[in-house]
Amino acid sequence: MTDIAVQSARLLSVLREKRPLVHNIANYVSMDVAANALLAIGASPAMVHAREEVAEFVSFSNALVINIGTLSAPWVEGMRIAAKAAREKSIPWVLDPVGAGATGFRNETVAALLPERPTVIRGNASEILAVAGTAGARPKGVDSANTTEEAEAAARALAERQGCVVVASGAIDLITDGRRAVKLGNGHELMTKVTALGCALSAVVGAFAAVERDAFTAAAAAAAVYGVAGSLAAKKAEGPASFRTAFIDLLDRISPAEVERQLVVIP
Amino acid sequence: MTDIAVQSARLLSVLREKRPLVHNIANYVSMDVAANALLAIGASPAMVHAREEVAEFVSFSNALVINIGTLSAPWVEGMRIAAKAAREKSIPWVLDPVGAGATGFRNETVAALLPERPTVIRGNASEILAVAGTAGARPKGVDSANTTEEAEAAARALAERQGCVVVASGAIDLITDGRRAVKLGNGHELMTKVTALGCALSAVVGAFAAVERDAFTAAAAAAAVYGVAGSLAAKKAEGPASFRTAFIDLLDRISPAEVERQLVVIP
Amino acid sequence: MTDIAVQSARLLSVLREKRPLVHNIANYVSMDVAANALLAIGASPAMVHAREEVAEFVSFSNALVINIGTLSAPWVEGMRIAAKAAREKSIPWVLDPVGAGATGFRNETVAALLPERPTVIRGNASEILAVAGTAGARPKGVDSANTTEEAEAAARALAERQGCVVVASGAIDLITDGRRAVKLGNGHELMTKVTALGCALSAVVGAFAAVERDAFTAAAAAAAVYGVAGSLAAKKAEGPASFRTAFIDLLDRISPAEVERQLVVIP
Repeated sequence: MTDIAVQSARLLSVLREKRPLVHNIANYVSMDVAANALLAIGASPAMVHAREEVAEFVSFSNALVINIGTLSAPWVEGMRIAAKAAREKSIPWVLDPVGAGATGFRNETVAALLPERPTVIRGNASEILAVAGTAGARPKGVDSANTTEEAEAAARALAERQGCVVVASGAIDLITDGRRAVKLGNGHELMTKVTALGCALSAVVGAFAAVERDAFTAAAAAAAVYGVAGSLAAKKAEGPASFRTAFIDLLDRISPAEVERQLVVIP
Repeated sequence: MTDIAVQSARLLSVLREKRPLVHNIANYVSMDVAANALLAIGASPAMVHAREEVAEFVSFSNALVINIGTLSAPWVEGMRIAAKAAREKSIPWVLDPVGAGATGFRNETVAALLPERPTVIRGNASEILAVAGTAGARPKGVDSANTTEEAEAAARALAERQGCVVVASGAIDLITDGRRAVKLGNGHELMTKVTALGCALSAVVGAFAAVERDAFTAAAAAAAVYGVAGSLAAKKAEGPASFRTAFIDLLDRISPAEVERQLVVIP
Repeated sequence: MTDIAVQSARLLSVLREKRPLVHNIANYVSMDVAANALLAIGASPAMVHAREEVAEFVSFSNALVINIGTLSAPWVEGMRIAAKAAREKSIPWVLDPVGAGATGFRNETVAALLPERPTVIRGNASEILAVAGTAGARPKGVDSANTTEEAEAAARALAERQGCVVVASGAIDLITDGRRAVKLGNGHELMTKVTALGCALSAVVGAFAAVERDAFTAAAAAAAVYGVAGSLAAKKAEGPASFRTAFIDLLDRISPAEVERQLVVIP
């Protein structure tokens, strides 16, 4: 699996060179940190949600990221139009099912978006279990009360059923397309103490999917770079806020060689 | 009043252990910093506002915080449904009447929410004067042009009339339930130079109210921990942004013993 | 043109003394950083967008800033009401046409707002070209793919036609009222790596326009202070996030004398 490390390093270089336009329908909480993470990693972010313009905006974007964190009916309408446009134009799109399993409205929204065939679904373990329809999801609001290990079988089944890549992120990140699977072991517990870092990872997955056709490799590379930056940032942090600053700085400065050297792939 | 210091330290430990789920209907400006303050202090934040799901989300939350900072009609509807659900299920809820007194729309919204009997009302001095209906409120947009001292009588009267706890925060924080009152003297002027730190305090009050039935003690503990962290953060800051970073780091790292040692209770 | 440096220093002092109330209809991404930039520079920010209250709020504000970054129909309605109120009451207002040229919805919104006669239009080069209706705008989502030099003629023509001041910001900032023009050369490339720093500049232009009747001088002063703070902050940064922290700290701490000393006016 050194292949993942090599590919991740390579794709980071490609991303920085191509600077893809990533269209986000983000939640309000995550907009600042997700936009800053995308800029730091080398992408060009835009946040556009209105039904009047989402299809037009998708049409010239390199990827779309839909995050259901702070839902309302008009936004769901925008999400559906954007996802449909992405599917029709074969633009890769990422679904972040924040709080799936917590309310009926969230479950209905996810159910309405899945037929538009997301390229990648990125969530925490509880969200992946909920989207997969597996008993045992224990969402605590929008935080996870499940481990990645508990969600592994569900993630594989969901990926296979949907024909997509599933990323269950947590202390261990699992990336699977149903057939292939890889587990990454970088990152740091402080990442759970900063709001919306999961959402920002979904945005970064979109940026990598914009420059690499194989969504499994793209999603693994995104999680790899993100996790390595997280591990390194923790060494400079005195708490969650200084961690966030160091983390965004590192997304900008981390070298492909460093990613390749530091990546922990779990056998 | 050393009792307040002892209780504040104790409740900080309880909060970190219980990690309550705090449901926020926050304003757009405050979402990032309020969520990060809640995570740092040890709570699990969620931001959910749509009428389709607020009542369901409140039902499994440990506290609700409603902030009227960036109002619009659909959000007011969500606020009313959520507040009603919280009252009916006896879930503690905090009202932050941002900009009360500044426009008719804000005053009407506050008037519509008060009958749902907030557990705590947290505002700056001008907002508390406006909610209390006292002449003399001089809001400057959403900032206060009144001192806590000017709002003291109004705060007590409002608390008594509403049967709730009122927190008027500023250079001095006043916490009262009409019968009891305490004034705290920590914090730092830099707190007025960072947007939404008042809003984030309301969210933190919600977190403490989730773990302590006596809302007066809970609100005083929240203001105590917040103020002590603010005083300590100011020593590390070179301006408002580095203050914010140090402050959030400290909400995560401050020890109960430090809170007890540093708290300034004004006789 | 040392005059610009002297005037900028003077207006910074005036702004800090008067602490104007700046009413923002901001985009979601920029709210946190724009509010913090306004507080740091010495203004009192408020974010208010609902049709029920924007006209009332404008009436006691010292300036209005409208940013179309995260558009939707209800917000456009609020923008139109607010802009009309500002024009009728002769309150200076700033238009930030984020992503102009990228979608029809954005172009229509700009067209609907221009008749309310903004005092200042602040955008990146691609946006200014698009608003001016000049062929050759190459927006990349909400980022610019044009240089300030490419937008210079269009900026002058737009300013003349609209009877307003136009600021095209980028590596070089151009400020023109059609007749007068000045180019400023401070700032740093890291400013393009932090989301919404252009939006926050528009807000700061509003703060200066609130305290200086000559909008050309006000806009130049805003860009001058902003650019000098950016240059200085870059020396303290290890990446985009630590840059943002240092930058906001500097907006708070920079002295008028430093602005006067450091300002680079391009002949």
